[in-house]
Amino acid sequence: MTMKQKLLAEFVGTLMLLATVVGSGIMGETLAAGNTAVALWGNTAATGAILVVLILVFGPFSGAHFNPAVTLVFFAKGQLTRLEAASYVLTQVIAAIAGVVLAHAMFDQTLVQTSLNGRTGTGQWISEGVATFGLLAAILGTVRYKVEAVPYAVGLFITAGYWFTASTSFANPAVTIARSFTNTFSGIAPADVMPFIAAQIVGAFVALFLFKVLENNKVDT
Amino acid sequence: MTMKQKLLAEFVGTLMLLATVVGSGIMGETLAAGNTAVALWGNTAATGAILVVLILVFGPFSGAHFNPAVTLVFFAKGQLTRLEAASYVLTQVIAAIAGVVLAHAMFDQTLVQTSLNGRTGTGQWISEGVATFGLLAAILGTVRYKVEAVPYAVGLFITAGYWFTASTSFANPAVTIARSFTNTFSGIAPADVMPFIAAQIVGAFVALFLFKVLENNKVDT
Amino acid sequence: MTMKQKLLAEFVGTLMLLATVVGSGIMGETLAAGNTAVALWGNTAATGAILVVLILVFGPFSGAHFNPAVTLVFFAKGQLTRLEAASYVLTQVIAAIAGVVLAHAMFDQTLVQTSLNGRTGTGQWISEGVATFGLLAAILGTVRYKVEAVPYAVGLFITAGYWFTASTSFANPAVTIARSFTNTFSGIAPADVMPFIAAQIVGAFVALFLFKVLENNKVDT
Amino acid sequence: MTMKQKLLAEFVGTLMLLATVVGSGIMGETLAAGNTAVALWGNTAATGAILVVLILVFGPFSGAHFNPAVTLVFFAKGQLTRLEAASYVLTQVIAAIAGVVLAHAMFDQTLVQTSLNGRTGTGQWISEGVATFGLLAAILGTVRYKVEAVPYAVGLFITAGYWFTASTSFANPAVTIARSFTNTFSGIAPADVMPFIAAQIVGAFVALFLFKVLENNKVDT
Repeated sequence: MTMKQKLLAEFVGTLMLLATVVGSGIMGETLAAGNTAVALWGNTAATGAILVVLILVFGPFSGAHFNPAVTLVFFAKGQLTRLEAASYVLTQVIAAIAGVVLAHAMFDQTLVQTSLNGRTGTGQWISEGVATFGLLAAILGTVRYKVEAVPYAVGLFITAGYWFTASTSFANPAVTIARSFTNTFSGIAPADVMPFIAAQIVGAFVALFLFKVLENNKVDT
Repeated sequence: MTMKQKLLAEFVGTLMLLATVVGSGIMGETLAAGNTAVALWGNTAATGAILVVLILVFGPFSGAHFNPAVTLVFFAKGQLTRLEAASYVLTQVIAAIAGVVLAHAMFDQTLVQTSLNGRTGTGQWISEGVATFGLLAAILGTVRYKVEAVPYAVGLFITAGYWFTASTSFANPAVTIARSFTNTFSGIAPADVMPFIAAQIVGAFVALFLFKVLENNKVDT
Repeated sequence: MTMKQKLLAEFVGTLMLLATVVGSGIMGETLAAGNTAVALWGNTAATGAILVVLILVFGPFSGAHFNPAVTLVFFAKGQLTRLEAASYVLTQVIAAIAGVVLAHAMFDQTLVQTSLNGRTGTGQWISEGVATFGLLAAILGTVRYKVEAVPYAVGLFITAGYWFTASTSFANPAVTIARSFTNTFSGIAPADVMPFIAAQIVGAFVALFLFKVLENNKVDT
Repeated sequence: MTMKQKLLAEFVGTLMLLATVVGSGIMGETLAAGNTAVALWGNTAATGAILVVLILVFGPFSGAHFNPAVTLVFFAKGQLTRLEAASYVLTQVIAAIAGVVLAHAMFDQTLVQTSLNGRTGTGQWISEGVATFGLLAAILGTVRYKVEAVPYAVGLFITAGYWFTASTSFANPAVTIARSFTNTFSGIAPADVMPFIAAQIVGAFVALFLFKVLENNKVDT
C-alpha cells in the first residue's frame, strides 16, 4: 500500500462514517414523532453497523482509524511516523466535514450549517473521556490477538456508548469538529468542540496506559 | 453447480429477500401506531437479518447476488459471461416481483398493486448512488480476503443504509422494479424507478473504480 | 452422548426457548404503552438472541433441534432412527409446555392458560409455510459446510420472520402447541393449532426438496 | 499475568459494565417519553453490546468474570484458589459500585444514591434463578470447545434476559449490590438485594450441575 492509497481509504471511510452519523440522526429525528429515544436508536444502529462494515472493508488498506485519537495512540506506540500521523489526521478532518456535507445533500438540506446544539459541562466531559477510553480499550484489547474481532468490538462499543454516556460518545476529534457543521440531531455548537477533544485525548491515553500496565510482564506480584 | 441450480438459488434468495422487505414494511406500518421510525426499525432489522441468512445459505450455490448491480460489477470484472449475467438479471427481476406477490399473499392483500409512493429529487438520487456505492464497497472489500464476513458486511451495510440515506437504500435495480408493484410502506411509484436504477448503476461502478485504485500496486507514492 | 443426555439437552433448550418467547411477549406488551410494534421488537430481539445462545450451548449435545419439524427433516434424511425421532418430538412438546408454565411463574400469572388469540386464514397458513421453509433452508444451507454459522443463521432468520410473515413465524409444531397454553401476547387459540402445524410440515419438506435439487450433481445443464 | 493485573482487568471491566447498565438506563428513561419498553430497549442494547466488548477485551487477562456467581462456579470447578476467588469477588463488588458512581457523574446526578425501586416476590426470585442459570449455561456451554463464542453467547443471553425474565436478569450479585446505590431506572431497593443474590447462587449451581450431567460419559444409556 502506498501512502496515497492509505489516505484514500481513510478519506472514504471517514466520509461514509460521518454521512451515516449525521444522516441517520436526521432520519431518526424526522420519523420518530418526538420520541427521542427512538430517534437515538436509529442513529445508534446505523452508526454501530456502518463501523463494522467500514473497518472490515478499509482495515486492510489503512488500518481504518477514521479517528485522530486512534491515530495519535498508534503514533505514540511507534507504529506511524510523525508525517504519516499528521497526514492521517488532516485527511480524517477533511473527510469528516465532507461526510457531513454529503449527508446534508442526501437530505436536501443546506450543505454547510452551524450547530446551535450546546453540549457542555462536567458530565459531558467525563462522558467523552470515558467514551474514548472505552473505544481505545476495545481496539487495543483486540488488535493484538483477535484482530478479526476489531470491527465488531468497535461497532458494539459505540452502540453501547450512544446510550451509556451522557454525551452519546463522540469519542473522535474529527467527528466532533465535523458535527459542528450540522444543525441537526447530531450537531455540537462550535464553542463546545475544544473541551470535547481535550477530554477525548485524555481518555485515549488513559487506555494506552492501562494496556501498558496489563501487558507488562514485570509488574510485581 | 449447473447454471439451472445457480438460477434456482438466485430465484429463491431474491424471492425471500423481497418477501422480507415488503412483508416487514407492512407489519411495521400496521403495528407502529403512527411512529414511522418504529416501523422503519422493524423493516430494517428484518431486512438486515435476512440478508445475512440468504447470503450464508445461497452464497455457495450462486454467489448470492440477488441484485443486478452486483451481477453487472462481477460481469465487468470478468467473472461472469454475458449470457450468465443476463440470466442472473432476468431471474432476479422475476423473483423479486414474485417475492412482492408472496408478501401480499401472506398479508391477505391484493396480489399485484401499483405504488403511489413518490420518491424523487436530487437528494433521493444522491442517496441511491451512495447506497449502492457503499453496498458494493462492502462486498468488494470483503470478498477477496474475508469471504466469511461477506454476509455480515452486507446485512450490516443495509441496516445502516435504511437510516443514513434519504431513500432508505434500495441499492438494487431488481428490488426497485419489484417495489413498484406494492402500494405499501416500501413501495415506489413506477415513474420514479428509472432514475433510481441509473443512480444505482453509477454508484456501483464508482465502488468498482475505487477498489481498482486501492488494489493497484502501481499507483505512484 | 447417551440418548438420555441428548433428551436432557433438548428438554432444557426447548424449555428456555419457550420461556423466552412467552416471557418476552408478556414483558413487551406490558411495557410498550400500546405500541404493538415496540412490543414485537422486544419479543423479536429476545427470541433471536436466545436461539443463538441455545444452539451454541446445546448443539454439541443434541443437535439443538428444539423443533419437531427439524427433527422430522433429519429423520427423513436418515440421520435419526424412528425411536430417536419420536423421543425427540415428545421431549420437545413436553419441554415447550413446561417453558410456557415457567414464563407464567416468572411473571406471576396463572400457570396454565388457554389462549383466545385467533390466528387463522390463508395468509397465516402461507406465512407458516414460508417461515418453516426459510428456517429449514437456513439450517440445511449452513449445517454442511459452515456449521459454526448455524446458530447465527437460525437466530437471524427468526428475527426476520417475526416481522416479514403475517403469523410472526411460529415455524415449530412444539412451539405452536405450547403457545396455545398462554393467553398472552404470543398465544394461539387451540382451534388454530393444527392448520399451523400442517403448514409448517409442508414448508419444512419443501426446503428439504430444494436442497436435494441444489445439491444434486446430476441435474442436466 | 500477575494477580494484580488480573484484578485490574476485573476492576475496569466491572466498572465499565455497571457504568453501562446504569448510564443507559438513565438515558433510556430520560428520552423515551414514557414508553418504558423503548427505555428498556436502549438499556438492553447497551448492556448486551458492552458485555461482548468487555469479554473480548478483558477475557485474555482475567477471564472476564465481572460476576461473583461466575467466580464461585469456577472456584467450585477447581479453577481458582480460595484466595483468588475472594479477591475477585471483592474487586467485583467495589468496581461495580464505582461504576454506578461513574454513571451518576456522567449524568450530573448525586454520586451515591439509595434505590427506592422495590423488586420482590416469587416471580422475581424465580426470574433471577432462571437468569443466572441461563447465564452460566451460556458460559459453561461455550467455554470448553467454542471459547471464541463466549463473548457473543453472554451478550446475547443478557439481551434476551432483559426481556424474558420478570426481573430483567440482574444475574450477578455484584451488579445487584451496586444497583442498590442508584435511584434510577435500573435501581433495586437495598432490602430486596439479598433474596436476589440467593436466587442467583442457586441458579448458577443448577447450571453447574446440569453440565456435570451432560458431560458425564458414565451416565447409563
